[in-house]
Amino acid sequence: MKIKHELKYKDINCQARTGILHTPKGSFETPMFMPVGTQATVKMLTPEELNKCGSAIVLSNTYHLWLRPGEDIVKEAGGLHKFMNYNGPILTDSGGFQVFSLAQPKDIKEDGVYFKSHIDGSSLFLSPEKAIEIQNKLGADIIMSFDECPPFPSTYEYMKESIERTIRWAIRGKKAHNNIKQSLFGIVQGGAFEDLRKHSALETVKLDFDGYSIGGVSVGEDKDTMYKMIDYAIPYLPEDKPRYLMGVGDPIDIIEGVIRGVDMFDCVLPTRIARHGSAFTKKGRINLKNSQYKTNWTPIEENCECYTCQNYTKGYIRHLITAGETLGGRLISIHNIRFLIKLTEELRQKIKEGQLLEFKKEFKKEYMGGDD
Amino acid sequence: MKIKHELKYKDINCQARTGILHTPKGSFETPMFMPVGTQATVKMLTPEELNKCGSAIVLSNTYHLWLRPGEDIVKEAGGLHKFMNYNGPILTDSGGFQVFSLAQPKDIKEDGVYFKSHIDGSSLFLSPEKAIEIQNKLGADIIMSFDECPPFPSTYEYMKESIERTIRWAIRGKKAHNNIKQSLFGIVQGGAFEDLRKHSALETVKLDFDGYSIGGVSVGEDKDTMYKMIDYAIPYLPEDKPRYLMGVGDPIDIIEGVIRGVDMFDCVLPTRIARHGSAFTKKGRINLKNSQYKTNWTPIEENCECYTCQNYTKGYIRHLITAGETLGGRLISIHNIRFLIKLTEELRQKIKEGQLLEFKKEFKKEYMGGDD
Repeated sequence: MKIKHELKYKDINCQARTGILHTPKGSFETPMFMPVGTQATVKMLTPEELNKCGSAIVLSNTYHLWLRPGEDIVKEAGGLHKFMNYNGPILTDSGGFQVFSLAQPKDIKEDGVYFKSHIDGSSLFLSPEKAIEIQNKLGADIIMSFDECPPFPSTYEYMKESIERTIRWAIRGKKAHNNIKQSLFGIVQGGAFEDLRKHSALETVKLDFDGYSIGGVSVGEDKDTMYKMIDYAIPYLPEDKPRYLMGVGDPIDIIEGVIRGVDMFDCVLPTRIARHGSAFTKKGRINLKNSQYKTNWTPIEENCECYTCQNYTKGYIRHLITAGETLGGRLISIHNIRFLIKLTEELRQKIKEGQLLEFKKEFKKEYMGGDD
Repeated sequence: MKIKHELKYKDINCQARTGILHTPKGSFETPMFMPVGTQATVKMLTPEELNKCGSAIVLSNTYHLWLRPGEDIVKEAGGLHKFMNYNGPILTDSGGFQVFSLAQPKDIKEDGVYFKSHIDGSSLFLSPEKAIEIQNKLGADIIMSFDECPPFPSTYEYMKESIERTIRWAIRGKKAHNNIKQSLFGIVQGGAFEDLRKHSALETVKLDFDGYSIGGVSVGEDKDTMYKMIDYAIPYLPEDKPRYLMGVGDPIDIIEGVIRGVDMFDCVLPTRIARHGSAFTKKGRINLKNSQYKTNWTPIEENCECYTCQNYTKGYIRHLITAGETLGGRLISIHNIRFLIKLTEELRQKIKEGQLLEFKKEFKKEYMGGDD
């Protein structure tokens, strides 16, 4: 069974929409934030903990699982769901982003990318066909085309060449895809160039994917440029297919993405900053390492229903973080994931009420605080 | 309220006994294994996870909490129970063992021990009175006298001098103790010298503590010597008070201790080895890093009811450990703690049935396997 995106409400004041994404492993409402389980585990957390955060789908990484433990081992375990004991929907990226960000040096050819493993330096090759073959074996519900994610900024000439290659790679990957239970997304690139984003979107949509990702954002550009990258692509994406903004997890960026018509987001941000003591709050990010929290016996956020805020104080979590105890990062991860999921719940509600733009104004105003 | 140890069954073939230890924070059956939460957290785990393992009491460390976050901060949080969100019984050690094992160099005087912090090298001083004062502020249900834990082996002369000083320290600590809700244990030392263990036990018991610890074991001596150390002390300890063998968590040692009349055990072993991939099984310790587990899709132990064995395979946990994911150590910690708690449950049952010595034989025979 392929996924189906059932649109529910459209905001009359912007391009935001709500929907239900039906997958072989259950349905969930959109817009939705997806926690990242790079190595078949959302760092420090169990599937039950994710469920309690309201999390409905997790992302895992083809590149990492290919290197360790290897896609054949995951397949032998019964696929990624069984391997990691997660029964909800899973999305895997293609490995493209990791090849371009983690593996150095690399040699980009028409047939694929030659590079060195970031673990042991061994020579590796990833192609559109190989990325799909690995993902077919991993068995996620939603998989990604193999794309090039050029650095920002890149020249117009390089980006043009790159998106043409990525479109050719998309054609090859789609042809190679042979698991009818898995839905395949195409990826729109093009950097900050309006006509290239348009061209990439139009050509990718022609190939009729099950959904469309916007890639190459959050790679060093400023916020206004990031939002423009979304604006340049969205008009050319079909209404009835889900739209996934890759690698974006800042609360403000999620709101701006939703306003522009994005349905899905993923980012390591909530779990990565948690391990360094940083927590999302409505008043902005706070860092529990700060000495002001040493004797603060209130939760990270009053009125937060997450396990962490219901049971632990900032002072205790600060102690855990400063003492190097992993429970600290685990507790903040739970809160941070809940924070982003709850944000998408509020955004869905505001879309239904036609109050999204007002909500954004209020949220941004309050979020200006924080100490991190 | 002080603790009360209600004896239930005595084994007719050895000195083993079962009982119920009543504490201000609830009652639990003995013999019991206590997981160690050195820094006010049993590494990686929540109180709920400990409870699900059948854990009934946790140990925390005066030395560590004194240095970080400081006993005044814990007191301000409402005491250790509130600070770490754990509502069951808590035991704190005196800091003595840590001063002698972690802090170098140290200068042992009659008034106390001068040493350097293992965190920042600052000059510190811990005395019998100070150790009690810190523990009064931390607010555990059971606290320990400040003792010297000499290295093994020590000379007879040094050990004699040391236990006399430890007895004088016990008198001073008992006098300083001013929280009637907290029960105070004396500690029997004396190394492997029969007459010194006897002398230490007799003099400590004269002081009428709420319970008695056997210290200075598991510090490098061989197994037979360890068991003798217990044998030398036990005859002089009162029947109606709980007996606590400090720092012992090897399954065989727990059985041998119970046979000799010990009621309580603590050790970092189950959580420490877990973080290195090592798991207890009835067939001996196994290390999940071993490549044989790469494609093993069975739980650590069949028929184990712990969360880990009910949900995860050895192959997946191996992946987590080798990939450096902390969920791996967390899952094995849950299993290892459950393993030791379950062992004490079985020992209690066997004592009631008068089958303890037979059980020991069978357990030891099966436990000879393993690969770690």
